[in-house]
Amino acid sequence: MRADTRLFAWVLAAAAALPALAAAPESKLPGPAEIPAGYRHWTHVKSGLIPPGHAAYASFGGLHHIYANDRALAGYRDGRYADGAVLVYDLFDTRDTADGSLDQGPRRHIDVMVRDARRYAATGGWGYAEFAAGDTRDRLSDRQRNGCAACHRSREAQGQVFSEWKD
Amino acid sequence: MRADTRLFAWVLAAAAALPALAAAPESKLPGPAEIPAGYRHWTHVKSGLIPPGHAAYASFGGLHHIYANDRALAGYRDGRYADGAVLVYDLFDTRDTADGSLDQGPRRHIDVMVRDARRYAATGGWGYAEFAAGDTRDRLSDRQRNGCAACHRSREAQGQVFSEWKD
Repeated sequence: MRADTRLFAWVLAAAAALPALAAAPESKLPGPAEIPAGYRHWTHVKSGLIPPGHAAYASFGGLHHIYANDRALAGYRDGRYADGAVLVYDLFDTRDTADGSLDQGPRRHIDVMVRDARRYAATGGWGYAEFAAGDTRDRLSDRQRNGCAACHRSREAQGQVFSEWKD
Repeated sequence: MRADTRLFAWVLAAAAALPALAAAPESKLPGPAEIPAGYRHWTHVKSGLIPPGHAAYASFGGLHHIYANDRALAGYRDGRYADGAVLVYDLFDTRDTADGSLDQGPRRHIDVMVRDARRYAATGGWGYAEFAAGDTRDRLSDRQRNGCAACHRSREAQGQVFSEWKD
């Protein structure tokens, strides 16, 4: 093999390895990699509306629904969430209807928090991820993931969970 | 037995029978008698908000969630609802939070529609009921039940169901 061909082969191999490295660099905080399958059929905990003008509107404005898997549901009882507990925050734009009521518009994004005390120790034992509507790739930066964790830690007594179960 | 004792016994027996007669008189349109067990863990279809000032505010104002059992979920696909399909409309007052977002307040009432083409033939094959928060007795009059049916029949092509499935 000639030297320039060997170089070309090396560049190709390095390029092929890059996407994998970019997706999971050693230094990046771990977070859930996927939207949880079937969450639309989990238990709906509650909903809320963050209106225009609210400080959190840019990030979380609209109508949101919170869904819990069975393990997370158990956690609402006493604030202790077992590994494998998953909560989904499903956010929609709102839409004014012709008759003056407020309906769900298109989805904005899906936020996910997964309990795994060991794997997500750096972010309080919960792993955080956010998926833009129609996208299957988590888009959180380390800075944002740390932001999720810092805010959720203010609810330590409730297992770092903001929502409360509504019968 | 003396005549006045016999009369007293008859009055007691008649009085004891009255609540049963009042609950299900022959002439009353049939409707679902109970809040469906476990509906809070059924699939959440969508939510919406009817604000103050809306024509329907007195009856349906606030934040509502719609839940479907598995048989009703199948119906959303093609507008054909099999007997046993059940939909629940769970209505809450809204509550302004300190930070300016809108949260769920106390429950207002629970509306139920149950598909049974034969039993509820007089109301389009769907039986309608409404339970005030904390009450297990359907409170709809015949006039109101006919009102539900008349309005829902405007959605005949969608199986008389107003909501649409949101993935």
